[in-house]
Amino acid sequence: MTTEECWSRLASAELGRLAVTAHDGVDIFPINFVVTGEVIYFRSAPGSKLVDLTANPRVAFEADGAIGHSRWSVVVRGEARRLDADDEIEASGILTLETRTGTDKDNFVRISAETITGVRVPLK
Amino acid sequence: MTTEECWSRLASAELGRLAVTAHDGVDIFPINFVVTGEVIYFRSAPGSKLVDLTANPRVAFEADGAIGHSRWSVVVRGEARRLDADDEIEASGILTLETRTGTDKDNFVRISAETITGVRVPLK
Repeated sequence: MTTEECWSRLASAELGRLAVTAHDGVDIFPINFVVTGEVIYFRSAPGSKLVDLTANPRVAFEADGAIGHSRWSVVVRGEARRLDADDEIEASGILTLETRTGTDKDNFVRISAETITGVRVPLK
Repeated sequence: MTTEECWSRLASAELGRLAVTAHDGVDIFPINFVVTGEVIYFRSAPGSKLVDLTANPRVAFEADGAIGHSRWSVVVRGEARRLDADDEIEASGILTLETRTGTDKDNFVRISAETITGVRVPLK
């Protein structure tokens, strides 16, 4: 998949998985996200996920789906950073993202991609 | 979700995502897997994924899906180990798993769970 195709597929998805370095190895979280201008944004409740991100900003992110007779999977590797400025939060489009779990998710995080790669495999 | 529900949902899925420690941070891979006796098995082509697992066996693994009017997500944290013995490979059930990408995937890996947790969120 070309870089352009990867971003296009990623933007079509809603659910991704964020892999982070944890104090005792690696951890993984399902997250809802938006893509705005080749940046991935998500919101998160205060907690261990963000604590780990502050210490270890390098993350890997995956989303996948089906299109036609094949499945695609896109992996982004890069750095995560918490958004502080209100105007950056506003411009990100993240405020359009509903919180599905019903809990307050007041932290906003951006993932800046260093690499993006994608594969497409036929559905059996 | 109870531990039993987590294993049941996990066994119903085919596609998961494996988070591993890489030489330059974390990485994530979509994998097809089987569950046999509360152990997760997958097969993999020789390559960086397994090299990293040998150096850093601690992994996190996620699978998700929809059931009724909700989505579920299960996360397993534990250790990955390559299978060597033919009888262990046979007993694992991994040989029933087709390789979808068409490449040879001659390495067999087991993930022993230390923790398994699951969440269910309503579909919007």
